[in-house]
Amino acid sequence: MNSAVLRKLLNEVRSRKVSADEAVSRLRHLPFEDLGYAKLDHHRALRQGMPEVIFGEGKSAAQVAQIFSRLAKCHENANILATRASDEQFQAVVAQTSKAQYRPLARAITLQRDRHRYGKGRILVISAGTSDIPVAEEAVATAELMGSDVQHLYDVGVAGIHRLLAHRAVLGKARVIIVCAGMEGALPSVVGGLVGVPVIAVPTSVGYGAAFEGLAALLGMLNSCASNVSVVNIDNGFGAGYVASLINRR
Amino acid sequence: MNSAVLRKLLNEVRSRKVSADEAVSRLRHLPFEDLGYAKLDHHRALRQGMPEVIFGEGKSAAQVAQIFSRLAKCHENANILATRASDEQFQAVVAQTSKAQYRPLARAITLQRDRHRYGKGRILVISAGTSDIPVAEEAVATAELMGSDVQHLYDVGVAGIHRLLAHRAVLGKARVIIVCAGMEGALPSVVGGLVGVPVIAVPTSVGYGAAFEGLAALLGMLNSCASNVSVVNIDNGFGAGYVASLINRR
Amino acid sequence: MNSAVLRKLLNEVRSRKVSADEAVSRLRHLPFEDLGYAKLDHHRALRQGMPEVIFGEGKSAAQVAQIFSRLAKCHENANILATRASDEQFQAVVAQTSKAQYRPLARAITLQRDRHRYGKGRILVISAGTSDIPVAEEAVATAELMGSDVQHLYDVGVAGIHRLLAHRAVLGKARVIIVCAGMEGALPSVVGGLVGVPVIAVPTSVGYGAAFEGLAALLGMLNSCASNVSVVNIDNGFGAGYVASLINRR
Amino acid sequence: MNSAVLRKLLNEVRSRKVSADEAVSRLRHLPFEDLGYAKLDHHRALRQGMPEVIFGEGKSAAQVAQIFSRLAKCHENANILATRASDEQFQAVVAQTSKAQYRPLARAITLQRDRHRYGKGRILVISAGTSDIPVAEEAVATAELMGSDVQHLYDVGVAGIHRLLAHRAVLGKARVIIVCAGMEGALPSVVGGLVGVPVIAVPTSVGYGAAFEGLAALLGMLNSCASNVSVVNIDNGFGAGYVASLINRR
Amino acid sequence: MNSAVLRKLLNEVRSRKVSADEAVSRLRHLPFEDLGYAKLDHHRALRQGMPEVIFGEGKSAAQVAQIFSRLAKCHENANILATRASDEQFQAVVAQTSKAQYRPLARAITLQRDRHRYGKGRILVISAGTSDIPVAEEAVATAELMGSDVQHLYDVGVAGIHRLLAHRAVLGKARVIIVCAGMEGALPSVVGGLVGVPVIAVPTSVGYGAAFEGLAALLGMLNSCASNVSVVNIDNGFGAGYVASLINRR
Amino acid sequence: MNSAVLRKLLNEVRSRKVSADEAVSRLRHLPFEDLGYAKLDHHRALRQGMPEVIFGEGKSAAQVAQIFSRLAKCHENANILATRASDEQFQAVVAQTSKAQYRPLARAITLQRDRHRYGKGRILVISAGTSDIPVAEEAVATAELMGSDVQHLYDVGVAGIHRLLAHRAVLGKARVIIVCAGMEGALPSVVGGLVGVPVIAVPTSVGYGAAFEGLAALLGMLNSCASNVSVVNIDNGFGAGYVASLINRR
Amino acid sequence: MNSAVLRKLLNEVRSRKVSADEAVSRLRHLPFEDLGYAKLDHHRALRQGMPEVIFGEGKSAAQVAQIFSRLAKCHENANILATRASDEQFQAVVAQTSKAQYRPLARAITLQRDRHRYGKGRILVISAGTSDIPVAEEAVATAELMGSDVQHLYDVGVAGIHRLLAHRAVLGKARVIIVCAGMEGALPSVVGGLVGVPVIAVPTSVGYGAAFEGLAALLGMLNSCASNVSVVNIDNGFGAGYVASLINRR
Amino acid sequence: MNSAVLRKLLNEVRSRKVSADEAVSRLRHLPFEDLGYAKLDHHRALRQGMPEVIFGEGKSAAQVAQIFSRLAKCHENANILATRASDEQFQAVVAQTSKAQYRPLARAITLQRDRHRYGKGRILVISAGTSDIPVAEEAVATAELMGSDVQHLYDVGVAGIHRLLAHRAVLGKARVIIVCAGMEGALPSVVGGLVGVPVIAVPTSVGYGAAFEGLAALLGMLNSCASNVSVVNIDNGFGAGYVASLINRR
Repeated sequence: MNSAVLRKLLNEVRSRKVSADEAVSRLRHLPFEDLGYAKLDHHRALRQGMPEVIFGEGKSAAQVAQIFSRLAKCHENANILATRASDEQFQAVVAQTSKAQYRPLARAITLQRDRHRYGKGRILVISAGTSDIPVAEEAVATAELMGSDVQHLYDVGVAGIHRLLAHRAVLGKARVIIVCAGMEGALPSVVGGLVGVPVIAVPTSVGYGAAFEGLAALLGMLNSCASNVSVVNIDNGFGAGYVASLINRR
Repeated sequence: MNSAVLRKLLNEVRSRKVSADEAVSRLRHLPFEDLGYAKLDHHRALRQGMPEVIFGEGKSAAQVAQIFSRLAKCHENANILATRASDEQFQAVVAQTSKAQYRPLARAITLQRDRHRYGKGRILVISAGTSDIPVAEEAVATAELMGSDVQHLYDVGVAGIHRLLAHRAVLGKARVIIVCAGMEGALPSVVGGLVGVPVIAVPTSVGYGAAFEGLAALLGMLNSCASNVSVVNIDNGFGAGYVASLINRR
Repeated sequence: MNSAVLRKLLNEVRSRKVSADEAVSRLRHLPFEDLGYAKLDHHRALRQGMPEVIFGEGKSAAQVAQIFSRLAKCHENANILATRASDEQFQAVVAQTSKAQYRPLARAITLQRDRHRYGKGRILVISAGTSDIPVAEEAVATAELMGSDVQHLYDVGVAGIHRLLAHRAVLGKARVIIVCAGMEGALPSVVGGLVGVPVIAVPTSVGYGAAFEGLAALLGMLNSCASNVSVVNIDNGFGAGYVASLINRR
Repeated sequence: MNSAVLRKLLNEVRSRKVSADEAVSRLRHLPFEDLGYAKLDHHRALRQGMPEVIFGEGKSAAQVAQIFSRLAKCHENANILATRASDEQFQAVVAQTSKAQYRPLARAITLQRDRHRYGKGRILVISAGTSDIPVAEEAVATAELMGSDVQHLYDVGVAGIHRLLAHRAVLGKARVIIVCAGMEGALPSVVGGLVGVPVIAVPTSVGYGAAFEGLAALLGMLNSCASNVSVVNIDNGFGAGYVASLINRR
Repeated sequence: MNSAVLRKLLNEVRSRKVSADEAVSRLRHLPFEDLGYAKLDHHRALRQGMPEVIFGEGKSAAQVAQIFSRLAKCHENANILATRASDEQFQAVVAQTSKAQYRPLARAITLQRDRHRYGKGRILVISAGTSDIPVAEEAVATAELMGSDVQHLYDVGVAGIHRLLAHRAVLGKARVIIVCAGMEGALPSVVGGLVGVPVIAVPTSVGYGAAFEGLAALLGMLNSCASNVSVVNIDNGFGAGYVASLINRR
Repeated sequence: MNSAVLRKLLNEVRSRKVSADEAVSRLRHLPFEDLGYAKLDHHRALRQGMPEVIFGEGKSAAQVAQIFSRLAKCHENANILATRASDEQFQAVVAQTSKAQYRPLARAITLQRDRHRYGKGRILVISAGTSDIPVAEEAVATAELMGSDVQHLYDVGVAGIHRLLAHRAVLGKARVIIVCAGMEGALPSVVGGLVGVPVIAVPTSVGYGAAFEGLAALLGMLNSCASNVSVVNIDNGFGAGYVASLINRR
Repeated sequence: MNSAVLRKLLNEVRSRKVSADEAVSRLRHLPFEDLGYAKLDHHRALRQGMPEVIFGEGKSAAQVAQIFSRLAKCHENANILATRASDEQFQAVVAQTSKAQYRPLARAITLQRDRHRYGKGRILVISAGTSDIPVAEEAVATAELMGSDVQHLYDVGVAGIHRLLAHRAVLGKARVIIVCAGMEGALPSVVGGLVGVPVIAVPTSVGYGAAFEGLAALLGMLNSCASNVSVVNIDNGFGAGYVASLINRR
Repeated sequence: MNSAVLRKLLNEVRSRKVSADEAVSRLRHLPFEDLGYAKLDHHRALRQGMPEVIFGEGKSAAQVAQIFSRLAKCHENANILATRASDEQFQAVVAQTSKAQYRPLARAITLQRDRHRYGKGRILVISAGTSDIPVAEEAVATAELMGSDVQHLYDVGVAGIHRLLAHRAVLGKARVIIVCAGMEGALPSVVGGLVGVPVIAVPTSVGYGAAFEGLAALLGMLNSCASNVSVVNIDNGFGAGYVASLINRR
């Protein structure tokens, strides 16, 4: 539509109905972004291996199902992801989109159609404790749907450092590492000191009392003495998987 | 004085000037604590290896010198300690108490006269970084003046975990361990997981930005996933040395 | 397995198939920690009087029962503890581990098989109010399972200081004291001033309004004017019992 | 002036130049408060024993001197008080108001002309430590200038509870008690439990680390388990002296 | 019992079986507080017009009923109060203590037997909005059971200041004023400026968003520019009523 | 009534029963505000296009219905608004006030009788995401009932800035703009930079983790680098609609 | 320059060297915003009555002088404003821009050349105390340079509400009101309740202790019970003057 | 040394003085990490393009100079970096290490000897305002010393979004983008939405009032609605440059 408007103007220039100066003036006020909209959006899908992601929390099962279905149709061969999704939401989704799958630990509904490997290296997802696994699994699911090779290493928190050290070889093979930890959030610093690749730290809301719903872990990670650590929001496994996948892109 | 009052009353009972019932009644209202005062105080000095400690911050050099001198005289053979003390305060102290010494790193003025070893094991004081050393040294000075055998291990923070692991044998020989760390405050958790003795964690105000003057380290330590960690106030090396010495008492 | 790998290498050295220099080089890259893993773990059990503890909160009854049972089998004569456990979780546990017991006030599931007294003195557990008793009881249960002699003194908060003073003799007999208090968290300071032994302060989430779920008590305890006080996380009765038992070890 | 306006209107009513209805209408819009201003102010001085108080902090010496002098003239026989005042400010004040005096500990400039005893009982001002004395002295100075009988009891903090208990008789004679404490701010609860009169708690900014400039003491006092405690702002000795004097009024 | 012990000792002194010196020594270690216990407690009831108050929140209906009944029996003619009590708890209480009454707005269970007027003036309880009334009513109930003459003035918040000003006469007749306000908590400052008596400010948790459960109101009240304001904990209507009654005592 | 009192006094002046001086004196103590009360209130309704608004949250359905009905009767032709209202509350309202309507997205009950257009320009209400729409709709409903011309623009958050830029023309036509955003709350700054009219920023509680229930958005908006932004409370769509309508008044 | 590029392209279309389709494609990638830059900027100056404002804090005197001079030349007849400016910065500015003036209370350097009255009503700037005047004066200076009619009313805080009420007529004549207050920040609510126009609340950092550098006032204002209040950043007098001027624009 | 010990043991195995089993046992207790220390360190230098970095803040000029010189000698061809360094520290450094250079904006001392290009793409460093440039320059200096191709784009904050949009082409060419912003910290979200590469957000302490020393920006960035944003500590330009360089490694 807007392309049509623009083309019409240019044809008027061409046919000399409109002067160049007049056209310059009109173009300055053109709502150009609308032109760019679809293109940008198209670019995003191409560039990132998947379209918009649905944040399930606070949406009804019917809403999630409808959005999921619409995205699945608009972006024919792309992968679709809904995070923070309940089993009830999944039941509604799968009724409309039969090939959708549910990963209960990750609380993620996925539709994987594009199995191209976009990343070049491996993403390692680490959890400090077993309670951090849901957040870690959300990162895993996200990264896998973005075409990454993902490996995980769970329950290797700092209070038993030998558990982590026993897997030093695994650490050494990753292109980027995601570390999910609650409580004191110390694991990213230790991991960061053992490797020479970027570490994405995810504070989790695991803990009680002075953990203050993940604040202690968040502050700990932001103050990491390891220089290769950056941080995402509390419990934001999705964001970590997303950033790691972008780092890992070819 | 109060003893005199009490003795007088009892003598009146004895000489039957006062009945037992009347004495019971009077005794109930006796300011008994004054009786206990000197005794308790005396007990404290005996029990803990040293008398009151002077907190130097916010006191004038003259004030510190006067209190130091008075304590040194009252408690003849005891050790005297002034913490958070400046060199200027030390100059004033040493002018009156010639045998006092200054430990600049620890910012402590000490007068060590009682060299008895009250502790039975060894206290290990660890610092995560070089900037945490002043706090660690305050702990060392305190513990030494309380008659403990103290060893230190500095700059073994979690971002280079091999530095700590290389000294695992040293860790294994301590009866109690003090760990001073700023920034993310992760070291006590790692140390706590390596040993089976109590760990006293001291958050330091080292760091910047979201370290919030030691708050990040404090919260991290309170949420330690190692069960053998307890925490004292930010930069409170004195408290850590004090508690560790009590743990280590025979 | 890793032992086997190591032994194989050493036998190759022995049979001169591999030179000493070559072996040095290979050993540097050995995933040595796996060797240490079981041993360390074994050490922990021996050293501390019990194996891993289960944190019940957020786990299903089935999960708690399975972990409890597995730990009970792996560590034949050791004591097993699950904290923050519900009655429902206990029902699941006792179905598999018939000798398990439930302490409802402490919300703890226990299996006490090792009744050896590891500690040498007595641990005194104090609560400020009746609402703090569950946290105090968690400390009691933990310390008892770790082989300590435990005594308690409840509802002796600072607003009625005579209640505490009446038990001064009891205070004087403890080797280490745990003080659980919510609201303003003032009791550890008062207790700390009356004794010459370590005091472990446990802030509780008891209170309302500006108690901010235990924050007021936590800050109060960290700022204690008594030098012998250290602090654990809000409501962390387990941690206090654990640290106190380590202090009290022979 | 405004009285004049009103009288003029009323005289016009009287002389029937203005109807009652018209006067009602006009009176509704009268800036009546200006009438009340002087009166109210006058009332305040009478009622409370002194006029406005000057908060010295952030004012120049010249400003303080000028305001002090003006107040001294307007309120002929009243007492004048400047709080948070420096010695430099006092020098400027005394140059203009020769009978002004300086209380350095309280950082207060006073001009005491009215020595009437407005209160009926005694106000007891307690400090937990020696560092809290400046705040306590501000309360003392304020209460004295408001015509109260004031007594003080310093350095009786909770870590040495016997020091407080030794003065139980003194506590029992007060009509209202002010308690100034920093660090954990526990003293008001203990005092509150010992007496049956109102306790005004003043948190001080004394302490370091997690004292957070008086926040720890403030929260502690707000959560006092003693029901007779109310709280004023951090370091607000003036407010405490003021409230206590009003409580103590005949 | 303890009296017996003491009397026995004194009789032995009297009969010269025990010397005065020996008795002084023994008395120092006497658990004297137990002697004082009942007496003190008795004093409290006499002094304050009522015995212990029950905090209902978090207690079962049966527990509240049992404690209520026991207190009612121990303190024969005294008033009994349970705060933060539900209707269910009241049903349990009234089954045992038939004369107990429930004030649903105040969420208070009361047993009023002593109708003596202990206070000399009048306590005025003000609420800023209608949502603050439950807290205000708790203050009213408390003050009434403590023998005060109480009047209330509700819904006179600062956004319609004329509502308050219309009752200036009422304000002027109070000996002490309690002001309950949520949201910005501004009302105590305005009231404080209009009167010359103590104002007890009670922040309420009324509000949303940046009210942060009463924190905004609490901070506002602590920073009141009116000098006659002191503050109690968020929603602590009981504390305010208690303090006000003590202020108002004859 | 009060008018009557006043008129009576003035008539007494007129008939010379009372002197002017005596009348001045009496008038100073008149509870004048009561005179003004009804008038002021009347003014408010006239001035602002609607009477008091009902905050539904925490009120019973019956309470909301009763207040709604009473307001509808008192203010005959005015619009009535209840915010934060549930469907259940609406059912109770509509049973009494049959013309009331419910706007579920806005959670608002409205009775629109006055359809006069009080504003002169247009209010544009923008939401960053779809989750912010309920807050935005509350602003829309409020502004409409206050007689404003309102347009909205939803889901134009900063992560897809082209969506906003595409509507630059719409932005340019508004007299005042309301921007509702959660999470990082960045949209008001961007909008503010694009226009030369006042922007009212409404932080929403949308987000998780370090969003801290709207605190992150609130702080972001307060620190806006655009100079034309002012802020209301978290989720306060009503306040934003109210302020915007006042700005937009003729 | 970019215009030149665009004109060249259009001339190529006109001369049929480039097809319309090709031109559409190229235009999509044109850095169009550069075209718009100067224009937008020009618009801003026209629209808002003044160009960019200089934030003086943290800039050297030389930097402020240079920027001021450059702006004064670029925007020939416009007013120039530097906020948070020191006298030293002013000396540097006036050396280059001789007609610049300094308003010390407002800490503002101004160059007023455009004296057109852009606003239609009056802006009233109120301060609660005398310490809030610098912030208020910054608002005054800003609004005056933006062509507003400004009046002020200082030292009318809520603790002496009659001072404010005495000026009710002045309040009633303003089109928009700015209220600057520190401490409890209650004044905007009271003012907001007295008027029917928008109130811009400016929290100031005036206060001590629990004022927390303006946080108490900020929270208070955000929770105002008056619906016509919106808030800007702490001490942001400039922002308030700016927003008020935009509201007041014809 | 440790190598020697190990070699000795292996030679004993070889000469059959020690059995393989005995050697396995001994090796388990070997302080192996010391072996690994130098090697690991060496690895770090190789792997990351530079050795340890010096944090200048809080160190004396002499200390910085000495450490700088030692690092320069140990790591012959590597680049050396000191951050948060003053001009005075630089003078001390350059006296010992003559080729060192000072970048005053970045407050960085650099010694660039290795000019190899380790990265494969380009790092773009963006600042929102001119006050954020020092932090941005620290990121630039760090990334350049780690062998990255770095470009910057300053003063393109969200309040003038056209400034950023004008450089969309530049954004599109970066492999990773660093965004430094204070105040509301909104820029990373906008940038994140425009690109498909990782964005490292650096909150700066620029701002005042409710910026709370960078907290507002930090929270804003953590809650970014753009999925490709991760965050480092406040003012941590070094960390951002470090992480970006690792992402950009070949």
